[in-house]
Amino acid sequence: MNKKSSTKDLGLSSNERLYLKNISNFKPKKYQNFKPKGLKIYTFHAGFKNKLDDLLLIIFDNPVNFSCVYSKTSMPSAPIIWGKQHSRKSLRAIVVNSGNANAHTGSQGIKIINEYVDFLSKKINCKKNQVLVSSTGVIGEIFDPKIIIRQLAKIENKLQTKLFEAAKAIMTTDTYPKISVMNVTINKTSFKIYGIAKGSGMIHPNMGTMLAYIFIDLDLPKNILNKLLNSSLDKTFNSISTDGDMSTSDTLALFSSGTTKINLKVKKNYQKLNTSLSKLMRDLSLKIVRDGEGISKLIKVNVLNCKSIRQSKKVGFSIINSPLVKTAISGQDANWGRVIAAIGKSEEKINQNKIKIYFGKNLLCKNGSIYKNINYNKVNKYMKNKTIEISVILQTGKKSHTVYGNDLTNEYIRINAYYRS
Amino acid sequence: MNKKSSTKDLGLSSNERLYLKNISNFKPKKYQNFKPKGLKIYTFHAGFKNKLDDLLLIIFDNPVNFSCVYSKTSMPSAPIIWGKQHSRKSLRAIVVNSGNANAHTGSQGIKIINEYVDFLSKKINCKKNQVLVSSTGVIGEIFDPKIIIRQLAKIENKLQTKLFEAAKAIMTTDTYPKISVMNVTINKTSFKIYGIAKGSGMIHPNMGTMLAYIFIDLDLPKNILNKLLNSSLDKTFNSISTDGDMSTSDTLALFSSGTTKINLKVKKNYQKLNTSLSKLMRDLSLKIVRDGEGISKLIKVNVLNCKSIRQSKKVGFSIINSPLVKTAISGQDANWGRVIAAIGKSEEKINQNKIKIYFGKNLLCKNGSIYKNINYNKVNKYMKNKTIEISVILQTGKKSHTVYGNDLTNEYIRINAYYRS
Repeated sequence: MNKKSSTKDLGLSSNERLYLKNISNFKPKKYQNFKPKGLKIYTFHAGFKNKLDDLLLIIFDNPVNFSCVYSKTSMPSAPIIWGKQHSRKSLRAIVVNSGNANAHTGSQGIKIINEYVDFLSKKINCKKNQVLVSSTGVIGEIFDPKIIIRQLAKIENKLQTKLFEAAKAIMTTDTYPKISVMNVTINKTSFKIYGIAKGSGMIHPNMGTMLAYIFIDLDLPKNILNKLLNSSLDKTFNSISTDGDMSTSDTLALFSSGTTKINLKVKKNYQKLNTSLSKLMRDLSLKIVRDGEGISKLIKVNVLNCKSIRQSKKVGFSIINSPLVKTAISGQDANWGRVIAAIGKSEEKINQNKIKIYFGKNLLCKNGSIYKNINYNKVNKYMKNKTIEISVILQTGKKSHTVYGNDLTNEYIRINAYYRS
Repeated sequence: MNKKSSTKDLGLSSNERLYLKNISNFKPKKYQNFKPKGLKIYTFHAGFKNKLDDLLLIIFDNPVNFSCVYSKTSMPSAPIIWGKQHSRKSLRAIVVNSGNANAHTGSQGIKIINEYVDFLSKKINCKKNQVLVSSTGVIGEIFDPKIIIRQLAKIENKLQTKLFEAAKAIMTTDTYPKISVMNVTINKTSFKIYGIAKGSGMIHPNMGTMLAYIFIDLDLPKNILNKLLNSSLDKTFNSISTDGDMSTSDTLALFSSGTTKINLKVKKNYQKLNTSLSKLMRDLSLKIVRDGEGISKLIKVNVLNCKSIRQSKKVGFSIINSPLVKTAISGQDANWGRVIAAIGKSEEKINQNKIKIYFGKNLLCKNGSIYKNINYNKVNKYMKNKTIEISVILQTGKKSHTVYGNDLTNEYIRINAYYRS
């Protein structure tokens, strides 16, 4: 609304500066680059951002089966509304732009999508409903579909890029691209699963958070993809939170992009595939938290021995979203009292005299009050770690759940007070 | 847990430094001081804080009727557990210490209270259950009741203080004392209502937030006090939030400390008393938000034309607790897109094409997308104000509610990363 975020530069100049300036200290030191089989990747500079690539196009060689979940927000973006309007059995292409979320743009937002999807579907000879679209960036600003169409027109003469460039093109306040690749062998058949994701702020689970695309180099039917996606979602993308703010644009899609078939009627085979995908989804979702806006420390909260998974998750998110817990961790203070307060605000019925709280392996609180033999030297040393693990034992039952988040720092304020998203 | 917050100084040295350094720019310029009739006020330096007074004792001349609400947390502090254990018809004294919350201190916490209340009740010749106790400060640290008893022993030779000193003695990260006084005349009878409160962080409504004590200089029966308290609570103390973190210690008490009687069977009289008290409670609760940790701007969110009060409150708190909205306001950015995202995460069923959003009197969003004729100069100028009013019109019904909070700044991080509460 002010100068630094006018519609002209679509608010992304400061992002680009941020990208160059303040990098998460969890950024991977090395990247391998990959080019999955069965698809072509193109990235473009459309002009949503000042200089960086901001448009990703993926074209599958043949129509592929897929499974997809969207944000549970009651204010979905135009790409999500459009996606839900178009039922489809298979996909031929994915178009993602970063720098403008096309959210709360009304009927115009839908019209914009229709225009560039219409152009693309004619160009690559597929049905309109065979295109998956996503947008991420500032909310509420209308843009001209021509800036996308102008790029899509160029594909004949454009060199293909790879996963690293794809992951980079969909970033907003992310400080590094997020890629996970897994090698799997089932019954002597080897194949790969590839995933890319973006997300750094406005991260609160309610589906898969933010944008994530996962490609399995196998030929799988849609019902299996649905089953696989749902079985891993809750413990991965739905268990992370950076700021408790759910996005309008979250999309997670799983594609069967290969031709190899595997006998999944053999239970062991299915389980191996499921476990491998689950590991990749966990890795990819953690890459997002590790790039949480302004992060200095990753926080892992285990809520153990609970009455139900629901209770465990509720208490876990109450802790991981508490600004007071988050600031204590950033200040390297093992402030278990704020953890107690956060448990209390969940309003779950819990006997506080039975709770145990550990920071790492250090017991801090037991039988309703402070543990008598705390080794403060050890605890202070532990709090200097980059990853802090808090374990809370409620003793209300036998269920457990783990959630992930990050600390709250001055850097979060700087990014969000001066960057427009 | 680290040096700066050892048990020795009970973590309050940094608070005292904070108190001197970073004062909310909403701090009242002048204070009048008051000494309500029918009660004696004493303040002491017990040693919870380094230098400042940290213990308040109020003794009523005669037993008084009262009404009291506590935090809804499932992890209540020892004073709240103790208070709920002791049913009582009237009160003779209030004891409040700041610097240690006596929370999550198990059976020892209860024993501590029993010891100092036992001492006091013998000293002033009342029943133990006629004493109301509160504690505020760091959670989980046991203290020796003697440091309170040593002070209570001195009252014969101690000079009485007034409301200003009382409000000051109960502060923790507060940067100024909170007092409200109201003159009321009903049927030619004039009387005063006095209130003091403390609270700055860990502020999220679920009862009256934090500590607040209100004295009505009238003789009122308990059932009227209960009725008065409940009728004003929801629109005042239960409509503010600084950080979404509910405290373990919140207590709000209303006392009938006078001797004057008023005919409250006359409906008009009751309504006038109710309105006056409600105004005082609103003023006192706003004084707390205006001293919200790290505040630079007060945020008022009106959620209008809703299906129900419940929906209006849910959406209001979703906006006022959104870190992304709060940082945008601190960055003077009228980022209505983040307001939309915050409405969405409430998961309320709302047609986004009917929502209107105003910042002050400036319409920013209408019919599902950005308003065409925004006067950006006017909006940018408005965002420089100390108080920002956001009005959201949902058009799902006829109910409305207003909630209050403050922006999120570097100062909040500084206070909570380096102060132990």
